[in-house]
Amino acid sequence: MINEKRLMTDLEELAEFGRDDSGGITRRSFSREETSARKWFEERLRDAGMQTRVDAAGNIIGRFGKQGPAVAGGSHIDTIRNGGKYDGSLGILAALESVRCIQERGTALANPLEVIAFADEEERFFGFFGSYAMTGVVTANEIEEACDESGIRLSDAMKEYGLDYRRVSEAKRDRSAIKAFVELHIEQGPLLYNQGVPIGVVNGVDADYRFGVSFRGRRDHAGFPMSNRRDAFAAMCSVVQTMDHYRKEIGGNNTRLTVGDVRVVPGIENVVPDQAYCSMDFRDERRLVLQRIESALKDTAEKVTRQSGVTVHVEPILRINDVPFDKEVCDTIREAARDLGIAYRDMQSGAGHDAQVMGQHIPAAMIFVPNTDGRSHCPEEHVSKQHIFLGASVLCRTMERLARA
Amino acid sequence: MINEKRLMTDLEELAEFGRDDSGGITRRSFSREETSARKWFEERLRDAGMQTRVDAAGNIIGRFGKQGPAVAGGSHIDTIRNGGKYDGSLGILAALESVRCIQERGTALANPLEVIAFADEEERFFGFFGSYAMTGVVTANEIEEACDESGIRLSDAMKEYGLDYRRVSEAKRDRSAIKAFVELHIEQGPLLYNQGVPIGVVNGVDADYRFGVSFRGRRDHAGFPMSNRRDAFAAMCSVVQTMDHYRKEIGGNNTRLTVGDVRVVPGIENVVPDQAYCSMDFRDERRLVLQRIESALKDTAEKVTRQSGVTVHVEPILRINDVPFDKEVCDTIREAARDLGIAYRDMQSGAGHDAQVMGQHIPAAMIFVPNTDGRSHCPEEHVSKQHIFLGASVLCRTMERLARA
Repeated sequence: MINEKRLMTDLEELAEFGRDDSGGITRRSFSREETSARKWFEERLRDAGMQTRVDAAGNIIGRFGKQGPAVAGGSHIDTIRNGGKYDGSLGILAALESVRCIQERGTALANPLEVIAFADEEERFFGFFGSYAMTGVVTANEIEEACDESGIRLSDAMKEYGLDYRRVSEAKRDRSAIKAFVELHIEQGPLLYNQGVPIGVVNGVDADYRFGVSFRGRRDHAGFPMSNRRDAFAAMCSVVQTMDHYRKEIGGNNTRLTVGDVRVVPGIENVVPDQAYCSMDFRDERRLVLQRIESALKDTAEKVTRQSGVTVHVEPILRINDVPFDKEVCDTIREAARDLGIAYRDMQSGAGHDAQVMGQHIPAAMIFVPNTDGRSHCPEEHVSKQHIFLGASVLCRTMERLARA
Repeated sequence: MINEKRLMTDLEELAEFGRDDSGGITRRSFSREETSARKWFEERLRDAGMQTRVDAAGNIIGRFGKQGPAVAGGSHIDTIRNGGKYDGSLGILAALESVRCIQERGTALANPLEVIAFADEEERFFGFFGSYAMTGVVTANEIEEACDESGIRLSDAMKEYGLDYRRVSEAKRDRSAIKAFVELHIEQGPLLYNQGVPIGVVNGVDADYRFGVSFRGRRDHAGFPMSNRRDAFAAMCSVVQTMDHYRKEIGGNNTRLTVGDVRVVPGIENVVPDQAYCSMDFRDERRLVLQRIESALKDTAEKVTRQSGVTVHVEPILRINDVPFDKEVCDTIREAARDLGIAYRDMQSGAGHDAQVMGQHIPAAMIFVPNTDGRSHCPEEHVSKQHIFLGASVLCRTMERLARA
């Protein structure tokens, strides 16, 4: 049912917006490159006979059909710096292709179909900005404070694109406006690819608790005795090691800890560091595990502070609870896969997605396709042509099942 | 015998050259601030009746007396960025004060006295540049390659100061030119201060082996399963922990490991790092311990590479062997302290000094004075007035004993 060639052509064309020197895509939210891509995408929606609008947060909404709660598919249109060509793009283009196919099949529909391209998912300014706005949890005050890493304000970037941030609340949609939201996305992990399963039915998104941990000790010369040191980096290593132990003990093998942002001051070979900082990102499908890990982290910080003479300070950055997806939407995805004779498996998402924000307000779920080699957020990000076809087919069938009369 | 007021005035005056906003001293080698300090110091040497010259490496040499092997005291005139006012300064000013006192006492001398202010000890360009040049182990080719961290060439900085780097070999002095070199310095550690002993007789300088350790793994999303990760920072923590174990096992409590320069790429909270780097500085009075630790580090790197999928590469940065100081010069320091009824203890230096470079070619030793709170290389670096007086007195008496007829 899916027109594979049409979808592949769309993917190639969209990938030209923001293509950078290294072969990656840099199409950051509300950038010039993204604005061009948005125009192109709106045209594709209209070509497919859809009515388009851009809401007060910059979300692009294409609609086919009249009144009633919409069955929506989509994802986001922005990318990280030097990202890949499937993250976000596949979800919006497969939803577009699904609407085209359902039209072509002439299925009688009880509900309108929608394609949604969310704004600023990748955290140039905010992260999940579009889906937060659509579910009504962003305020104009929060936008006033949001800047990208070079100090450009979200409010200014929105203005340049033609939006007034003070009207952001207008982007909010009632629960009754959307019957279901389905997001097709590449798995940002190796599970499906390693197991050779083409479809992941995502039952929920893991909880994600993130902390900034600061260490303040004393700067000493590298000849200084070990026993009297107050070494900020040594304290960091000790906390990281202890928390990796608690990760396994409180959580288990599927609980994850990522220490991604690490800084050590003064950063001189022959000087014992007096300051250090690291981020700690914990993920698990059970928020209770992360709540217990948070307690353990605070206890560890206090213990290390008492014992090492290095003051350890824990600052929560993020507490996103696990979001279970809608059982009926998940069932429909399974039925769609069975209709088409495509193998699938249930799974969790370790990464955050717009569907997880939407899923806290309306029935939502996700379909994952295998990520060749498990690489994502990089130019090497890859989904095979066959998996693109199978994923888009399941999305199409799911939307059709949800919307048909 | 020491004129305490004169010495304290000199210390205060020298500290004005390069005083920075935070109350520290930034008098980096061959900078404008250092050049002004050099002029001031040469004048002080001449005021004390000494003949002065600047050698081909920029070392300032003041000499009192005629022919024969000199008894020299001194240290370096440059500081690190935002350093303290005693490191280097105390050694050159106490040597100057010693020469003035010996003159005033009218001691009959068999040897001339010298005060030496070494160039670029603090590694703006080279580290121990002046003492390396005086002992003949620096070549013009090496100078051509030396730059500071902002890319300024040592050769250009020397030229601006009026020196031709191609003539650096002229700075070399024969072994017979110097009978002994004695350097008074603050201890860059807490030992003397904590034990309440005013004088350290330094028997030698510890060996210092330094490595750059690079880790290359794979960049993954923070939702990626732990078991399949190739996390560069996790590998670094593991190597640091293993090497801290070997430090104690191969060396002991007095073997030191400093991990000072730490970098993690890409440094994003929700991305598993694919690249990491850390420096590892090992110190011990026995080079054999450090040689064994180097083997253990290489084995550990290979093992982690094999087991974790993160490639670990070890690059030696520095291999400075331990330098035992001259027994007779050390004895003379002890006798000098006993002459004056000042308590002392034997000790090692964990930090590197010009005396350690000189000590590989001529009889040399060091006198340490207590470092209040053990802080050094920072604006808070402090030596009490009493300890300055006692240290300078022992230096003066040592030089007098070594040079008298």
